[in-house]
Amino acid sequence: MNSPLRVAMIGNGFMGATHSQGWRTAPRVFDLDLQPEMAVMVGRNPEKNAQLAAKWGWAEASEDFEAVLSRDDIDVIDIVTPGDLHHDMAIAALRAGKHVLCEKPLANTVEQAQEMADAAATARANGIVAMVGFTYRRVPAVAFARQLVERGAVGQIRQVRAQYLQDWLADPGSPLTWRLDKSKAGSGALGDIGAHAVDLAQFVTGLNLTEVSGVMETFVKERPVLAEGQGLSGSAGTETGPVTVDDYAAFHGRFDSGALGLFEATRFATGRKNALRLEVSGDKGSLAFDFEDMNVIEYYDATAPSTEQGFRRIFVTEAEHPYLEAWWPPGHGLGYEHGFSHQVRDLVQAIAAGEQATPTFDDGYQVQRVLDAVERSSARGSAWTATQ
Amino acid sequence: MNSPLRVAMIGNGFMGATHSQGWRTAPRVFDLDLQPEMAVMVGRNPEKNAQLAAKWGWAEASEDFEAVLSRDDIDVIDIVTPGDLHHDMAIAALRAGKHVLCEKPLANTVEQAQEMADAAATARANGIVAMVGFTYRRVPAVAFARQLVERGAVGQIRQVRAQYLQDWLADPGSPLTWRLDKSKAGSGALGDIGAHAVDLAQFVTGLNLTEVSGVMETFVKERPVLAEGQGLSGSAGTETGPVTVDDYAAFHGRFDSGALGLFEATRFATGRKNALRLEVSGDKGSLAFDFEDMNVIEYYDATAPSTEQGFRRIFVTEAEHPYLEAWWPPGHGLGYEHGFSHQVRDLVQAIAAGEQATPTFDDGYQVQRVLDAVERSSARGSAWTATQ
Amino acid sequence: MNSPLRVAMIGNGFMGATHSQGWRTAPRVFDLDLQPEMAVMVGRNPEKNAQLAAKWGWAEASEDFEAVLSRDDIDVIDIVTPGDLHHDMAIAALRAGKHVLCEKPLANTVEQAQEMADAAATARANGIVAMVGFTYRRVPAVAFARQLVERGAVGQIRQVRAQYLQDWLADPGSPLTWRLDKSKAGSGALGDIGAHAVDLAQFVTGLNLTEVSGVMETFVKERPVLAEGQGLSGSAGTETGPVTVDDYAAFHGRFDSGALGLFEATRFATGRKNALRLEVSGDKGSLAFDFEDMNVIEYYDATAPSTEQGFRRIFVTEAEHPYLEAWWPPGHGLGYEHGFSHQVRDLVQAIAAGEQATPTFDDGYQVQRVLDAVERSSARGSAWTATQ
Amino acid sequence: MNSPLRVAMIGNGFMGATHSQGWRTAPRVFDLDLQPEMAVMVGRNPEKNAQLAAKWGWAEASEDFEAVLSRDDIDVIDIVTPGDLHHDMAIAALRAGKHVLCEKPLANTVEQAQEMADAAATARANGIVAMVGFTYRRVPAVAFARQLVERGAVGQIRQVRAQYLQDWLADPGSPLTWRLDKSKAGSGALGDIGAHAVDLAQFVTGLNLTEVSGVMETFVKERPVLAEGQGLSGSAGTETGPVTVDDYAAFHGRFDSGALGLFEATRFATGRKNALRLEVSGDKGSLAFDFEDMNVIEYYDATAPSTEQGFRRIFVTEAEHPYLEAWWPPGHGLGYEHGFSHQVRDLVQAIAAGEQATPTFDDGYQVQRVLDAVERSSARGSAWTATQ
Repeated sequence: MNSPLRVAMIGNGFMGATHSQGWRTAPRVFDLDLQPEMAVMVGRNPEKNAQLAAKWGWAEASEDFEAVLSRDDIDVIDIVTPGDLHHDMAIAALRAGKHVLCEKPLANTVEQAQEMADAAATARANGIVAMVGFTYRRVPAVAFARQLVERGAVGQIRQVRAQYLQDWLADPGSPLTWRLDKSKAGSGALGDIGAHAVDLAQFVTGLNLTEVSGVMETFVKERPVLAEGQGLSGSAGTETGPVTVDDYAAFHGRFDSGALGLFEATRFATGRKNALRLEVSGDKGSLAFDFEDMNVIEYYDATAPSTEQGFRRIFVTEAEHPYLEAWWPPGHGLGYEHGFSHQVRDLVQAIAAGEQATPTFDDGYQVQRVLDAVERSSARGSAWTATQ
Repeated sequence: MNSPLRVAMIGNGFMGATHSQGWRTAPRVFDLDLQPEMAVMVGRNPEKNAQLAAKWGWAEASEDFEAVLSRDDIDVIDIVTPGDLHHDMAIAALRAGKHVLCEKPLANTVEQAQEMADAAATARANGIVAMVGFTYRRVPAVAFARQLVERGAVGQIRQVRAQYLQDWLADPGSPLTWRLDKSKAGSGALGDIGAHAVDLAQFVTGLNLTEVSGVMETFVKERPVLAEGQGLSGSAGTETGPVTVDDYAAFHGRFDSGALGLFEATRFATGRKNALRLEVSGDKGSLAFDFEDMNVIEYYDATAPSTEQGFRRIFVTEAEHPYLEAWWPPGHGLGYEHGFSHQVRDLVQAIAAGEQATPTFDDGYQVQRVLDAVERSSARGSAWTATQ
Repeated sequence: MNSPLRVAMIGNGFMGATHSQGWRTAPRVFDLDLQPEMAVMVGRNPEKNAQLAAKWGWAEASEDFEAVLSRDDIDVIDIVTPGDLHHDMAIAALRAGKHVLCEKPLANTVEQAQEMADAAATARANGIVAMVGFTYRRVPAVAFARQLVERGAVGQIRQVRAQYLQDWLADPGSPLTWRLDKSKAGSGALGDIGAHAVDLAQFVTGLNLTEVSGVMETFVKERPVLAEGQGLSGSAGTETGPVTVDDYAAFHGRFDSGALGLFEATRFATGRKNALRLEVSGDKGSLAFDFEDMNVIEYYDATAPSTEQGFRRIFVTEAEHPYLEAWWPPGHGLGYEHGFSHQVRDLVQAIAAGEQATPTFDDGYQVQRVLDAVERSSARGSAWTATQ
Repeated sequence: MNSPLRVAMIGNGFMGATHSQGWRTAPRVFDLDLQPEMAVMVGRNPEKNAQLAAKWGWAEASEDFEAVLSRDDIDVIDIVTPGDLHHDMAIAALRAGKHVLCEKPLANTVEQAQEMADAAATARANGIVAMVGFTYRRVPAVAFARQLVERGAVGQIRQVRAQYLQDWLADPGSPLTWRLDKSKAGSGALGDIGAHAVDLAQFVTGLNLTEVSGVMETFVKERPVLAEGQGLSGSAGTETGPVTVDDYAAFHGRFDSGALGLFEATRFATGRKNALRLEVSGDKGSLAFDFEDMNVIEYYDATAPSTEQGFRRIFVTEAEHPYLEAWWPPGHGLGYEHGFSHQVRDLVQAIAAGEQATPTFDDGYQVQRVLDAVERSSARGSAWTATQ
């Protein structure tokens, strides 16, 4: 029997549900070197928290983050609160000697992100693992795309196109939620979904963005105040309030290799529900991914005979593909939440091996610098702005 | 707290893994009226069985089916053994007053299936629920397709095309497995995957096949004997043995409404990994589904203005779509094994409500009659053969 | 300046328009060794014929086939009349020493087709070229598919799926046209569009069908009598009349190599407008074509590394692809009628070279034997029926 | 018999071939109110010009533009020379009282374009028609997209994405051609293909771009000197020379309505051959087009019931679709060069009716202003730059 790894999860919204699914499922599917235990879930509202903790499989419910942090029998703190709480919680947890998994964005400001990265570096010296939750890296098709780039399948990368397209704000009557409130969410389309596009592009290419020229927009500036409910939905009332975050952001970016990128994050792409897309073009080939068809990578081999070149639709469900050895036979696709099980697998195995897990807080900090540079560029009339 | 519903699962192969995932996940995602408990898993090999039971989350492991059947604290028997064992186990379980979930095909012969359907009818009078595991009905896109047909979206159905295309036997060097041995598997492509195509077509259209004209073929008649391993994979040895089941089956079918169907089940469709496909054409519209793109239904509305008609790619991930109220926001696709969680939801809710669950053993028996008629037709030079 | 090749076209319906486009365009795009001249167009209705001849670019109009046949200054007879006239016209033309291009189906009966093939063989000895108009062979993507099969890209072919799906009869109110009258059209879906699917499958695979088991159906047996107009459209009146041809045909077929084929021709596939499709599956790879995406071949290479296999969407518009050297840069797709220009090119070049052109009348006869066997099989309860 | 409309075409490169196809085909397919006559083709090289004129169907060949301009029997001047010659030729032709069709881009500088637009306005007062050759407007799917926007199908447009993706420069070894020489081509990816994306977006939306923030790049700055040949291909020699135009351009644009656009023109999108793409997102729906699938519009109706929304793949081949009344039955797709026949149809009909034809020289001038603003913005560090 493996040693236990006792986990406390802080927060119980949408990401609480997905992380719970990950903690519950990973040890049932993968062979892990430590045995995760869902020890305690922390939330503000006692009743709701207790109910969800029981439903999602956490042994205990608590409203006291500090108390949980001081317990010796907790090894991992999994932070799934809104972004404005990440900084304080993650640093406190690292200082308390806990391994930390922190949802993205790492923080709501680049300064906070830097402090968190510094704290993670300090903790790392003590064998503490810190990871940021860019789970799209763990979609098998994305992980496989990274392998293709690493083996040289696309050659020298010239350009990158990354998009995260949604449409849930296209209707001017859809309500204000905390995600449209800058004081809580920090940023809108840029920080919430653009962050994924940035991390995805940097991860798959292995390149970092060094400067950007960006545009941010709020198409609909007033929306109905939310009567009740939270998250992405909720019924709208009759009063309106201001949208204080962007609902559209796009930018040109230059990578450290000289390659150019074109990025777009929007909630007005009518008909696109969750189209996180990436296309990487090189002199030997290219790759394309769309999360709306998440089990597929399209790969174009420009070194094939000219009459036989074409985008190849690779169904990433073979046992030899990343993470697939533990799942189903070829052709049996995975879904959105599998990335959270893969995240647990990789975090647990890193802790067991005493190794760093990726994406690191430095990776999260790098994304934050890019987002911050986009904001500053947008405020300066799209002037090119360094990410450092 | 809901009353418990204690489950014993018999078998621990590929279907054991998927059913375990369903039992484990359904109560964490859906609000159920009974609380399933994974009480005991039954298998032949004590060591393997104990190891997998622990991994998959079963409280106990046992090698004694009869003993488990006699326990008062077991409410549901979930049968995931090879098809030759279904008949005896399911009837014994029903007679012992247990609710039964039985993997498809219901049995290896039509006579056995009939006896099982009769046993289920008898048990039904005592409040016992029996369900057969055609989980593809519970892919949200498929359940939604059924709703579209029910609301008249396709009008009078004229023709149906159903295919289950795989390619894992296209290589003549791939090994003999139990699925290629008639004594164990009962049938090959026809019974294993063609059964799904038949059930899918009958379910979505609401029509039953009454006669068929079929062809069965074994393209590769000798294959390397499997050195070790099981299921769908395994390394091949140097000896060869006979393939005693079909690796290709296709048939014309006539439905009770007069509509015609064209069915194909094959393991030689090179490049098609798990393409369970259905197209239903009516005088008002049509529907198309492909499991390789499982979160999508294509719907053609022939009553729209002629210039604006087109196959509409509906991403079946809205909260109002079947089963989706409990999962993720729009655009976050589900995977293969979600059907098993949905199956558990529907079975548990039916038991709680004292209602029949579908697909019933009668549905399984109807599929078996079709498969049997195809075999008889094939043996009679493709002569049209009644399913009754 | 090249020697002229003087052409008379018999008929002026839909196929008259496409053939005219072919004769007019081919010498403007390709470098031909003879210079086609559009000498005379023959039709029954003097006014309509003269008007269309002028519009389409024919130097003269005539209502007298016999007179045209006797002219020394006519080298080629291009027959685009309904199928019941092909036999007499083609044989008369061949006997008159004219090269003949005859639209498909070669004839309305297998006996007529055989006599035509015999007449072509006799004429061939005198240097006369006879060709049947299966123009889909000359879609570049199809011609390229044949090249792929010839170079072994799919290996040993195991199974073939060929479909020709249309939907213009799905509405029970669409009118009777000559194509629904057996005395004129000879056959319905089977002969009109199924013929294309048969020729396509035999051409691309290089295999011939030797026996079939078929089903033919007329879903809608009475339709409104056509008030006026012709061809595929026309406004419907209030009387109804009997549909005397099939509107759906499907069959299993066995090729001379032992491979199996599944064929379907229908005018009830709601939403499918002109979906002539072919999929060829072998042990080394597979190919798929759909005329609704006519510039593309999908090719699956089963010899690639397992993680990198996938259907490759080859855009068949490179200069090295068949017929493309004379057209536009890569990515500039061709349309339906280009096949008719390619047909003219190949016919003219064969005549110039004194060589046989394909598809020959023997090829047309072979298709006719298959169609005839399907009809006989259908009449015999789908019993397997030899094509010879 | 209609009155003749005598045409002189100036230039004989790639666009000469496509325009010839248009002049030759349009009167054979459409019913036109004037009868175009292909009178004379003008080129520099007498031998090549005479050979191509004969092949393409021009009655005469000439090397003397001035002489042709002075002929009374010429009604239309069709200019298909490189962009640096457009200005002088078009103005001279308009002053000579000829109708003018001028290939895009209208000119190589915005000043020239303005002078041409002024000249066209003057000529217009005398009943002279001037048209610029943005033929993609005449792809039926694009013309239909415009109709959908006009009828309000997408509602208020929020954002637009327009791309023109090619890959023929992705190989650093592909040679220098005149299109890479700024003195001849004026611009690179931006002017050659970006111009199409700009016109397409403005045409379909009915909106004009008022300011832009752009980036231009030359990824490969030296290429092998072209030994011989011209146009898009040619064999490369051993010397290299400088690429003096952009091979990548991208920009943010703001429309007069406040909508935002994201534009990209590139020759480094490996695997994309001629992907002119447009997506228009509004609060009632959206539209997507890709020239690589040119007979299709994807339309998303956001006013449909939430469970039944989806991108609808409309096959734009119905008789009621733009330009289709004269072509083939539904499902028989058109190709690239059909746009040139449609252009001839619309130009001839406008001349016959004494009406203005679109796109006008003003439309061409507007595109030129956008391209010029992108160049200026790029030179100013992507600062937002007005198009006026």
